[in-house]
Amino acid sequence: MKILILKTGSYSLEYCYYASEKETSLFEGRLDNYRYSASDKIALQEVLWDILKLCIDQSNGKGPDAVAIYSKFGGEAFPQPAIADKDSLLKMKSLIPRAPMQIPGALALVECCQRLMAETPIVLVFGTSFFVPLPRRETMYGLDPKSSDAQGIRRYGFHSLFHEAAAQSFNKDKETSQKIISICMGAQPEIAAIMGRSPVMVTSGITPLEGLPGHTTCGEIDPSISLILAKKFGWGPEKIDELLTRESGLFGLCGERMTFDEVFLSNDEKHRAAREIFQYRLMLSCGSALAAMGGLDAIVFSGRYLAAGKFLADWLIAQPFFHSLKKERPYEVLFFTKSLENLIAQKAAVTVLQQNNAEYNKEVS
Amino acid sequence: MKILILKTGSYSLEYCYYASEKETSLFEGRLDNYRYSASDKIALQEVLWDILKLCIDQSNGKGPDAVAIYSKFGGEAFPQPAIADKDSLLKMKSLIPRAPMQIPGALALVECCQRLMAETPIVLVFGTSFFVPLPRRETMYGLDPKSSDAQGIRRYGFHSLFHEAAAQSFNKDKETSQKIISICMGAQPEIAAIMGRSPVMVTSGITPLEGLPGHTTCGEIDPSISLILAKKFGWGPEKIDELLTRESGLFGLCGERMTFDEVFLSNDEKHRAAREIFQYRLMLSCGSALAAMGGLDAIVFSGRYLAAGKFLADWLIAQPFFHSLKKERPYEVLFFTKSLENLIAQKAAVTVLQQNNAEYNKEVS
Repeated sequence: MKILILKTGSYSLEYCYYASEKETSLFEGRLDNYRYSASDKIALQEVLWDILKLCIDQSNGKGPDAVAIYSKFGGEAFPQPAIADKDSLLKMKSLIPRAPMQIPGALALVECCQRLMAETPIVLVFGTSFFVPLPRRETMYGLDPKSSDAQGIRRYGFHSLFHEAAAQSFNKDKETSQKIISICMGAQPEIAAIMGRSPVMVTSGITPLEGLPGHTTCGEIDPSISLILAKKFGWGPEKIDELLTRESGLFGLCGERMTFDEVFLSNDEKHRAAREIFQYRLMLSCGSALAAMGGLDAIVFSGRYLAAGKFLADWLIAQPFFHSLKKERPYEVLFFTKSLENLIAQKAAVTVLQQNNAEYNKEVS
Repeated sequence: MKILILKTGSYSLEYCYYASEKETSLFEGRLDNYRYSASDKIALQEVLWDILKLCIDQSNGKGPDAVAIYSKFGGEAFPQPAIADKDSLLKMKSLIPRAPMQIPGALALVECCQRLMAETPIVLVFGTSFFVPLPRRETMYGLDPKSSDAQGIRRYGFHSLFHEAAAQSFNKDKETSQKIISICMGAQPEIAAIMGRSPVMVTSGITPLEGLPGHTTCGEIDPSISLILAKKFGWGPEKIDELLTRESGLFGLCGERMTFDEVFLSNDEKHRAAREIFQYRLMLSCGSALAAMGGLDAIVFSGRYLAAGKFLADWLIAQPFFHSLKKERPYEVLFFTKSLENLIAQKAAVTVLQQNNAEYNKEVS
């Protein structure tokens, strides 16, 4: 099955053409400085038309068998991927106030695809799905639960596909009660504690800003810091948001834009502070994950920055706590190498097959 | 030595008269709804005069031998208590922008005491002193270090006296490399990891808002939540501060004002969520503390809410992680019962004696 994957980031549109049975893409590309706004619909349609032509060239005149549209946020409404239909699109529209930067862009992609490829199934794939059933003690903040529930304020994870697939790959042929620390090394890294196949704890919050520092994101900070900046400098929420999400993390610590792989492969002394802070915060979060599960069978690294992951794995298991743990009861350290696009393609293919199967069963019965 | 202790909270002025060799106070009291503002100087002087008369009644016509003025915040400038003199008061004044709610009130107390008891030594005691030498990897946020250093943005602990005394009492007659999780159960609870007598990790941040939820404080939240509230409802920093520091924590979760002792001794089903969230966050932070130290010799509970502490201790060590830890290598669980006032009196007495000693040595040499 050939699948076109579309993904809007904060400032880019990425596309990727996959044959679901293969692990590498047929082609891929990205438009930088892309940020969807309602007036861009015609431009977006032209971009998609060009991408569609590339697909047709690759498939002897046939278009994709399915389109997968990826949204980081899907809220409680989407514990699974969904075929884009009336119901699911209504649900998705209701999420706009919760993720005003993400959902409108994804919905615009759906609309354009429906217009260009009316017969092609579209699958909505979400970054939060795996974490919908997180235990309530993990999702809740120390805030009034009534207004938190009304505003959708709860802890989420955002790298669902990596964590789920990493846990599945380790759990294969094992009992399902295995205890896994899953560390996804993306631009916004995230640690999840997974028992069997259920998440019990995750470092991210209502957004990926909470938890570990990222390429440009601050990670956990005292909530007073925003208020101090607002009172001291008269900064508004946009300016503070800009500082915490685009000018902090590795960028803030190193003074230059760097990826995790670059920082952890660098011999430059000036990147040492960033490395030390990140690996220390990683260790503290792993301690929390361990406490939440009560034991450890495996640490699985996944995500785009596995070179940093390998460095971090060596460092982590050499630390006194994880070293003594290993002596007492060995745990495995694994690296899961599949890409996000690969995982999205698999999810989309399974969802389309399930849908076809359900329709076939309906017809037969 | 008889010591008068003065302490301004956010909305109160507390006083307490101690004989430093005893564990209970001679008398104590508090003025609620007290908040220092510069226009209150005369009123403050009258209040202090009344307190001073009580002291004189208790001491056969003699006033206190020393006054201890407690400030939660002392910054890097005060790794130790200090006698109030020209130098220390200048240093303290320079801290006003860092703690505008705390320092001016404490300075006003110093001024009034100097006027009323010109010959009596005044000792400044701070809540942050023990944590000044925290390792840099623990104090730093994922933010630009240059502007953080300039703004004094770093992680602190605020229950120095409890953590230091709890660690000392456990360490007596032991090697100094003991690994201690110190849990201070105040209105804003705080966990510190202490190796020997040095703090290596603490849950609080630049303020006590970060970390665990408190009586009315939210604890760790996604930094986006402030920004979401500001953007969605147009709330300013004061209103958000009010919500996070005075309407959250146990109050937010239970819907009524309660102390930790009340919530943990309650059989009422409606307090269950608050208990579960607090004990879960406590467990996660203990996991982080353990990872930071690489082992555990003792968990020491201290602070005003030791009834909650006893409940929490039983719960914590029964959890799979801490249970299996205990089987592998036993650790002690202790309760440190001295009050904050008692600890302040001890610190003040030691500081005055050291000062007298230094002056005597100077005269002799």
